[in-house]
Parts: sequence; C-alpha cells; structure tokens
Amino acid sequence: MSEKVSVEKKVLSENDRIAAQIREKLGAKRIVALNLVSSPGSGKTSLLERTLDALNGDIKMALVAGDVQTENDAKRLIRAGGMLVRPIVTGGACHLDASMVSNALNQLDLTDVDVLFIENVGNLVCPSSYDLGEDMKVVVISTTEGDDKPLKYPSMFRRSSAMVINKVDLLGLSDFDVSKVKDNALGINGGLRIFEVSCRTGAGLNDWYTWLRELIIRKKRNET
Amino acid sequence: MSEKVSVEKKVLSENDRIAAQIREKLGAKRIVALNLVSSPGSGKTSLLERTLDALNGDIKMALVAGDVQTENDAKRLIRAGGMLVRPIVTGGACHLDASMVSNALNQLDLTDVDVLFIENVGNLVCPSSYDLGEDMKVVVISTTEGDDKPLKYPSMFRRSSAMVINKVDLLGLSDFDVSKVKDNALGINGGLRIFEVSCRTGAGLNDWYTWLRELIIRKKRNET
Repeated sequence: MSEKVSVEKKVLSENDRIAAQIREKLGAKRIVALNLVSSPGSGKTSLLERTLDALNGDIKMALVAGDVQTENDAKRLIRAGGMLVRPIVTGGACHLDASMVSNALNQLDLTDVDVLFIENVGNLVCPSSYDLGEDMKVVVISTTEGDDKPLKYPSMFRRSSAMVINKVDLLGLSDFDVSKVKDNALGINGGLRIFEVSCRTGAGLNDWYTWLRELIIRKKRNET
Repeated sequence: MSEKVSVEKKVLSENDRIAAQIREKLGAKRIVALNLVSSPGSGKTSLLERTLDALNGDIKMALVAGDVQTENDAKRLIRAGGMLVRPIVTGGACHLDASMVSNALNQLDLTDVDVLFIENVGNLVCPSSYDLGEDMKVVVISTTEGDDKPLKYPSMFRRSSAMVINKVDLLGLSDFDVSKVKDNALGINGGLRIFEVSCRTGAGLNDWYTWLRELIIRKKRNET
C-alpha cells in the first residue's frame, strides 16, 4: 500500500498548492469563504436557501455547489435567484478538490461578493482531507443522524470551525440528545461555534445570520 | 492524475482478488453475506438490532462492523448478545475493503452461521466501489435524508440489490416523498427489492425478516 500512500501524499500536496492560490485570490477580494460539509441530506442546501432568502439584498453571495451526480442543488439555488451559482458535478469523486473549485471560481464574476459558500459532496469522511482555500469549514449535522456522529467521524469535526445542528424541529422523535452531541463535538474541538437551527421552521437561524454578518465585517476590516 | 488512476486500479484489482476468496469461503459454508451501506445515521445498526431481536434463536447471525473511529456500533450489538461480532476501525479510511473483512472473518468462528452482515462505513460514495465478497449490497436510506439521494449517488443504488427505506415514522415531517424515492431508485436499478420500515416503531420489518429467511433457504439449497 506504500505506493498508494505516496500517490495520495502527492495529490494532497498539489491540492494544497491550488488551495493556497484560491485563499490568496479570495483574501485579496475580502471574500469570506465557507466550505459546507455534512452527511448526505443534512440540509446544506436548505441552509443556503434560508440564508439567501434572509440576507439577499444585504449581502452578495456566491456558491460553488458540488455533487457526485446531478446539478439539482445548484438549480434549487439558481431558481431562488439572487445568488451567483456554479455547479460542480464530480462524476463519482467523493469530495471536492481545490482544482475543481478553482476552475469553478474562474467562471464566476466575484466582483463585490461578500461571502462564497462551497457546498461539498455529502460525505463525512473524505472532504475533511481536502483544503479548498476556505476560511473555515462548517459542518452541518441533523438531529436525525444520531448524536454519536462527532465520535465516529472526528476528523471532520476537528477541522471545522462551526457546527450547525439542523432539524431541531424533529427533536424528541428520536434519541438524539443535543447536549450529548455538543459534548461529543466540543470534546474533539473545543473551539467549535455551535448553532441549533431548523431550516424547515426557521428556528435558531438569526444567530447564524448574525455570525455571517460578523465574519463579513471582520473580513472587510482584514481582521481574519 | 494518471498515476493516481493506475494505482487506484491496482488497489481495486487486489481488492477483487481477496473479495473472490471471501465469496468462495462463505459460499462453501452456505452463508448469506449482506453488505449494508448508507449515509451516516440512516439506521444500519438499528436495523441490525431489530433483526437480532426478532430472529435470534431461529437464525445464527454474524457481523463485521466497520467504523472510521470507535467500536460503538459493534458494542451496541455485542451488548444485545446472540450475535457474533467483530469490529473494524478503519482509522480514517472512508470504506471497508476486502482485506479488512477477510482479516475480521479469520477471527470469527463461522460454524453454523446462516447470515453474515457487513456493516460498512456510513458513506454513500466510496463503499460502492469495493466488493467485499458479499452476495449483495443493501442500501439503507432514511426518510429524513431527502428523496433525491438515488439521483445524487447513483452508483450505490445501481450496485445494491435491496433498498431499505428507514424512519417511515417520520414521514410527513419533511418533504420526503416515498413514491418519488422509489421512482428515483428504480429508474437507476429496476431490480431493487424495496422495504419501507421504521426501526423505531418496528413498522414494516416483517417483510424484511421474511426476505432474509428466503435468502437463507435459497442459499442452503444452493440456489443463489
């Protein structure tokens, strides 16, 4: 397997090189870049729809949306209007890499964009290894997935800066324990900023919007 | 990237060689082998708990349980008792491979075992590429994940022989449309056997148990 490991290392170091270029490009434009990661169906696209609905007009948003197949997520946001969207179909690959994101960004007019969302492939494992030039990873977890997920997929929670707990409207219908998932996640990464939301009902989303605004302001001031 | 592709091909062909050995070994013992695949938190372990609870005594079951980190799933089943269990911690790898399963099987006494479950890592992408010597893959999808998942992760649904739709007790609390997920899945793989269940309430599980019994009977008769 050492041949495999050495090729993987080479691929990752090439990825890091391109990610650094993306970071420099976005940094020069003072664009906040968030890499959204989660299991399939946790609600990344719903979170983006809510965010667009709430902040459109105040904040200029762009999205690079990755999926193994279909451009459906991208199309949901394009239909909503107001967000610059570029889909990436990975064609089987289990994660986005920096080269895919770089190509997609070359096809977006980033003038005056405040925040770039990168919606990764729904996968709690592989995307954790790939730097996409983002300022931070945001992991979305839904209350129907089980409160043990941080323990089972620690790398993703370690490398994320924020955790959005989605589908809190379904609490009580499963054994999911919010305080347990927080303990599990904070035990791995004590610096995690945590949001408890329902993209279905809208509950808890104001804190998320406020945080986004703060990130943008800090970026404009060149504090991050 | 051609170096990466050629190494991947080599890894997969070595995997197939070991998978064929597993298949021969299990075939000689007339053991039904099911490779359970799903997103994180779809309910693979809950399905196994229910199955163990219902069929223990009638059917002798063994389990190889994979996780990126922790042996928690394996421990849940070990605590329940009655099932031979061997955990595999992949230590970061996003899928089980045949070599991991082969090593785990060498540590299980398979005498008189009727059915072997292989609980894969929660990931709808990577495990689809790895033959583990199973008779068939069974994909578990929960109603909280969205009915678009077959379209977004077609390879997994194409390579599975059965689809278990779990958490039907939560239908109506999301936009999940059972007929749509069936259409989406059957459009990719018309031969899929479909079960609609709730591992929480027990609804629909009798069909699943009956199917398992039929598989075992056919295997003993050497019909599969």
